[in-house]
Amino acid sequence: MPKLVAYKDMNPRAKAVVDGIARARSIKPDEINNVWKALARHPDVMERFADELKMAMGPGKLDPLTKELVYLAVSIANQCDYCIASHTAMAAKKGMTGEMHEEFMAVVLAAQKGNKIASAYRVPVDAAFEEN
Amino acid sequence: MPKLVAYKDMNPRAKAVVDGIARARSIKPDEINNVWKALARHPDVMERFADELKMAMGPGKLDPLTKELVYLAVSIANQCDYCIASHTAMAAKKGMTGEMHEEFMAVVLAAQKGNKIASAYRVPVDAAFEEN
Amino acid sequence: MPKLVAYKDMNPRAKAVVDGIARARSIKPDEINNVWKALARHPDVMERFADELKMAMGPGKLDPLTKELVYLAVSIANQCDYCIASHTAMAAKKGMTGEMHEEFMAVVLAAQKGNKIASAYRVPVDAAFEEN
Amino acid sequence: MPKLVAYKDMNPRAKAVVDGIARARSIKPDEINNVWKALARHPDVMERFADELKMAMGPGKLDPLTKELVYLAVSIANQCDYCIASHTAMAAKKGMTGEMHEEFMAVVLAAQKGNKIASAYRVPVDAAFEEN
Amino acid sequence: MPKLVAYKDMNPRAKAVVDGIARARSIKPDEINNVWKALARHPDVMERFADELKMAMGPGKLDPLTKELVYLAVSIANQCDYCIASHTAMAAKKGMTGEMHEEFMAVVLAAQKGNKIASAYRVPVDAAFEEN
Amino acid sequence: MPKLVAYKDMNPRAKAVVDGIARARSIKPDEINNVWKALARHPDVMERFADELKMAMGPGKLDPLTKELVYLAVSIANQCDYCIASHTAMAAKKGMTGEMHEEFMAVVLAAQKGNKIASAYRVPVDAAFEEN
Repeated sequence: MPKLVAYKDMNPRAKAVVDGIARARSIKPDEINNVWKALARHPDVMERFADELKMAMGPGKLDPLTKELVYLAVSIANQCDYCIASHTAMAAKKGMTGEMHEEFMAVVLAAQKGNKIASAYRVPVDAAFEEN
Repeated sequence: MPKLVAYKDMNPRAKAVVDGIARARSIKPDEINNVWKALARHPDVMERFADELKMAMGPGKLDPLTKELVYLAVSIANQCDYCIASHTAMAAKKGMTGEMHEEFMAVVLAAQKGNKIASAYRVPVDAAFEEN
Repeated sequence: MPKLVAYKDMNPRAKAVVDGIARARSIKPDEINNVWKALARHPDVMERFADELKMAMGPGKLDPLTKELVYLAVSIANQCDYCIASHTAMAAKKGMTGEMHEEFMAVVLAAQKGNKIASAYRVPVDAAFEEN
Repeated sequence: MPKLVAYKDMNPRAKAVVDGIARARSIKPDEINNVWKALARHPDVMERFADELKMAMGPGKLDPLTKELVYLAVSIANQCDYCIASHTAMAAKKGMTGEMHEEFMAVVLAAQKGNKIASAYRVPVDAAFEEN
Repeated sequence: MPKLVAYKDMNPRAKAVVDGIARARSIKPDEINNVWKALARHPDVMERFADELKMAMGPGKLDPLTKELVYLAVSIANQCDYCIASHTAMAAKKGMTGEMHEEFMAVVLAAQKGNKIASAYRVPVDAAFEEN
Repeated sequence: MPKLVAYKDMNPRAKAVVDGIARARSIKPDEINNVWKALARHPDVMERFADELKMAMGPGKLDPLTKELVYLAVSIANQCDYCIASHTAMAAKKGMTGEMHEEFMAVVLAAQKGNKIASAYRVPVDAAFEEN
């Protein structure tokens, strides 16, 4: 098991990161999830990830649920168990119903198949797609 | 280069698959993109993939652009060049603007980082996420 | 382009590796395929890989075609373009017909889907499988 | 832990899938392995995967053990723990001896090395392999 | 081909990023490598990556060549052709000799093998390593 | 759980491998870590891996800690939990401090991001890098 650092034992920089996340999620700092307890040993990495996440997942042209689904899709492709567990929970909080979850899985699996087909058959990119 | 089969040289089963896709996209059968020309040698695999894709990407609870972005996210995580080129084009056709593309990339890169952080720090799944 | 070393320009250790492969395949040394021309700069890595490949792919309990299909399956899962091109050719030489190729692809794609399903649904290993 | 659905609690479509698998394997429906209990929440995905698996792994030109080894090779390349555990068990049932298992592992590891060598040295595909 | 943006056509934010990199490397802005020309369309992603790279690769406790080798190792594991080409060049500039390159490749390939062995044999983590 | 073979129950070839490792690390043979207990069933694979590891990680032009960091970088990119746990411990033994660990993680994450950027934007390799 990694050395998870409880909120009360974190250094000030790590505490500040957790405080910011806790405020945004309306939770108490000691209810923070494990990834932040693990990162607390490395404040540079922690601050940079918290900042990147906030920018990426914050308000913009894409709605919050779409962003969660994109995050979850990457996590499934990479088979990251922690990320799948946590972001499935977050997607549900942001409105993903059981039906949407099933449709999402169908798309992920179709994409996964398409990726391996394109590679296995060594398909050259069509001229029409080269601009992308 | 893989043996790409032109529409006119395809067997009847492959032609039927291409006809269906061409109708749905309002293109001519010989304008079909390369992945189908490569699959034409293997009609069982081709029919199954065409069917799976139609079901997955068709109308449902998730809107068409969200589905394209999920497909593209998986393709980037898997570094499938053909799929990235083709589905970036398709996402643009379904309404992805330059700003949306940039936001999408920010989410993909944040997810990618989160995946490697969770693995590298060996983060145990929180009890609260275990139900997912 | 990587610095491919032609047979005539190889150092003695690299030449010895190529001579061995050429004899086994009944080809001339300068007909050797590119991976060996690329490895010729690094004789330690080259000798070790040639030795490992010879042991792994040589006669044993599994027949040569089965071994080629296993090699090709790994290469598709890893999306290694060079390996897919070269080992599809070798599998064909060892008896893979078009029908076998299609069946093989169906298995690879089913496995790929099974892998992502097991990860995405976070399926715990059955007690009955724990011995494996 | 994912929400595993026991056979008795499955909806009719999921039960029908399990019944089919149980018959084919001569086991009782409530002895079904966990992946099906996890998929029972998503009958569309479940039916499609069961169907794909049946077609891919069923009788054909490749013998059943070869198909299992191809499935297992993909699962190892993708590092899918559940799939490795379950398909090692299935391969053993279909005749994989300890010696065959060791030979198989040697091929998988040689392929894995070949894949990384081809990528790291950026080896261009030989003209002779381009047809594949 | 992606839309590569030449320096003279970049927006001010992208130009500023390139100016910073050009100064640090003592090159002219229009000699910048392609990844920055591709990112110029997405200034948020571009600025964040440039900043992250500068922090990560800058002076610290690890020497510059070690950092380059770590970067290259990740790129080989992920089979990123562009990254392998560019960071092999950078490692050479920072002092990687041919002998060091060969030793490095031997470590990468041993690690790759160890990773697949640990997964394929489903090796449980030793209690002594659990603290890490 | 895999069938881990205790030292006292190993066959002579496996015992010889463990004896060699134990001597090199100044530990007792029955303190050997789990990966060797798992490999003991497959002496060909075990001997080859032990030999490859010894050659790769032994004295050379690169210092021992650099080699450990390269090994660890590959293991994180591949998300191999066992390898991350064991080689983080080994890196610490070879002198990796907390600060070095954090810097290392920053490089790994920057590389990971660079890899996905190069793929997603389909960046063509610069002519200047083609020689590598």
